[in-house]
Amino acid sequence: MTIFLSVKKPTLILDEEKAKKNLSTLYSKITNQKIRFRPHFKTHQSNEIGEWFRQTGINAITVSSVEMAQYFSENNWNDILIAFPVNILQIEEIVQLSKKIELSLLFEDVVPVKFLDLHLSRPVKGWIKIDSGANRCGLNFHQIEKILELAETMKSSKNIHLQGLLTHAGHTYLSNNPAEIIEIYERSVKELNELRNGLHAKLSDDLEISVGDTPSASLVKNFGMVDELRPGNFLFYDVQQYVANVCHLEDIAVCVACPVVAIHPEKKEVVIFGGAIHFSKDTHAWKHNQPTFGLVTLPNATGWDHQVYGYVKSLSQEHGVLAFPNGIPDSIKIGSIVCVLPAHSCLTVQAMRQYMTLDGEVITTMLV
Amino acid sequence: MTIFLSVKKPTLILDEEKAKKNLSTLYSKITNQKIRFRPHFKTHQSNEIGEWFRQTGINAITVSSVEMAQYFSENNWNDILIAFPVNILQIEEIVQLSKKIELSLLFEDVVPVKFLDLHLSRPVKGWIKIDSGANRCGLNFHQIEKILELAETMKSSKNIHLQGLLTHAGHTYLSNNPAEIIEIYERSVKELNELRNGLHAKLSDDLEISVGDTPSASLVKNFGMVDELRPGNFLFYDVQQYVANVCHLEDIAVCVACPVVAIHPEKKEVVIFGGAIHFSKDTHAWKHNQPTFGLVTLPNATGWDHQVYGYVKSLSQEHGVLAFPNGIPDSIKIGSIVCVLPAHSCLTVQAMRQYMTLDGEVITTMLV
Repeated sequence: MTIFLSVKKPTLILDEEKAKKNLSTLYSKITNQKIRFRPHFKTHQSNEIGEWFRQTGINAITVSSVEMAQYFSENNWNDILIAFPVNILQIEEIVQLSKKIELSLLFEDVVPVKFLDLHLSRPVKGWIKIDSGANRCGLNFHQIEKILELAETMKSSKNIHLQGLLTHAGHTYLSNNPAEIIEIYERSVKELNELRNGLHAKLSDDLEISVGDTPSASLVKNFGMVDELRPGNFLFYDVQQYVANVCHLEDIAVCVACPVVAIHPEKKEVVIFGGAIHFSKDTHAWKHNQPTFGLVTLPNATGWDHQVYGYVKSLSQEHGVLAFPNGIPDSIKIGSIVCVLPAHSCLTVQAMRQYMTLDGEVITTMLV
Repeated sequence: MTIFLSVKKPTLILDEEKAKKNLSTLYSKITNQKIRFRPHFKTHQSNEIGEWFRQTGINAITVSSVEMAQYFSENNWNDILIAFPVNILQIEEIVQLSKKIELSLLFEDVVPVKFLDLHLSRPVKGWIKIDSGANRCGLNFHQIEKILELAETMKSSKNIHLQGLLTHAGHTYLSNNPAEIIEIYERSVKELNELRNGLHAKLSDDLEISVGDTPSASLVKNFGMVDELRPGNFLFYDVQQYVANVCHLEDIAVCVACPVVAIHPEKKEVVIFGGAIHFSKDTHAWKHNQPTFGLVTLPNATGWDHQVYGYVKSLSQEHGVLAFPNGIPDSIKIGSIVCVLPAHSCLTVQAMRQYMTLDGEVITTMLV
């Protein structure tokens, strides 16, 4: 419990052991199937944590912005996929990166392909972004003509090497039914393979398939005909994943330790120093499906309890209101510390910018 | 339009003229009624913008954390209210601040009063936090005995000078009916005055009343029997305030300029580089009351259009999906810039950390 005695304001606590276990579990499952594991580093955004991945045997990574690619390339990551549609306004930065590392980019439109081809002096790998149902980015399976036009534009370009088909089945995050998540995964992989075969017949290219989201990476046993997996959140998990039955409560590797500043026994509520600026305002569905912002547990001698005592009912800029429907635990006093398991760990890391391990070590991110 | 030509990634644009107009309008209204204007600086979090307030004639401010008080005290703000329940774990920092500036603090429990009294060597002003209906912090009007106990504990303390009653009628943010907002304000002030009179009879102290939230500060004409007003958001306003009929679209003084990275004409949607890490995930109710994350307009020669073209339908970490129910404007292309008016400007400033004015000047905050 020593680390919690040093907490005076909201502090992102990292249980290194849990995170490393999450990493090794998924690493074994993926690499045992001879699939390339290209984890998404947007979850942790830290060079130091990146080294845990390198030591595990990983050398190819995914990031979500040009800035993040720059940050990790400076720490000797030489094979980076930017899993975000090319922002042509950052052409200078992209050209610089392409000279330095093996850069992979996502395309769903011929405009950025042609634009980049004019400016690049060293080739990049180009992936066609497919929308497998997340309804955010990419071309749909049925937009065959557009997909073919894009593939041919890449093939006729000098500097964009057509690598394959890539999707992010982000709609798995909307399900809390493991069977449904597995079904979404399998349908998406089946459709991608059909598309790959169709394109192979027309282009005679061997295309790869890249997929990746934490729910399916965690739940699917046999990944089938894919070449690459790109989950990120699995490293820390969070309440969204716990509520969706993707992980266990004891797999969640981060919490925000927050001081208690007010207690309202008549409402069964507690106010903490810990608000939207610490957790973000992402939510998860808790009991009766009300949207809440995190689950509350308590520090113990070796970390935090694997038990939910309450939930985060509302967040203002710095205030968090915790509800304890079964009563406020006796150990909660003004000036004591509670542990909030975040709704969405990626956004909480982004908000908090640095970690403190249970041993008291500070781990920085690119955001500090 | 020059400033938008320099934008390559999400950039918080500040229309200084609009913000200064918002400031001078409210300043005149409040000070003409001989009420102390103690604006909340959590909205802008910037020393440079603080100077606009000083030049307007303001010398007392509100902040939401010890850290923010430290930041502004270093820039010669000598009269600061921390509008957050005292976090006794930050006692060292509070003691330091109390030696340097005229510090005002909020109390709703005797524990922090007694704790602080032991540690302080120079007095602070103590306000009793009253919950006038926001249901977050403070004692309710009807908890007379607790209020009296708290007031008497302060009175018998050496270092906490009982200053008055303070509320934040945050439930005005939940209304979009100006008449209702005004009614909430008037009821809250009436109840505070009744409480003040009741306490006066028992304690024979002249207590002040401090209130403050942007909806009522903007809409109420005659503030009545209050001594201090503490709004903050009015400086920039945002879509929450616009939708609630608290401000006009042309009063909103900040937007996030974002690059367009994908266009989906068949869905009438556009994907931008601009996500939860730039806007936060706060929402506002748009047409048919769906929760959305911002409204979309376009840059023009002098700033941005005072017209809504679409709305932010969803946000991921870096992606924003914009919906244009009436069709995507012709000027929106891959690589062009759109302007997103944020749902909640305070949290967007927190996420973006610095401003760029329409003249291209960078204004920093305490967050950089």
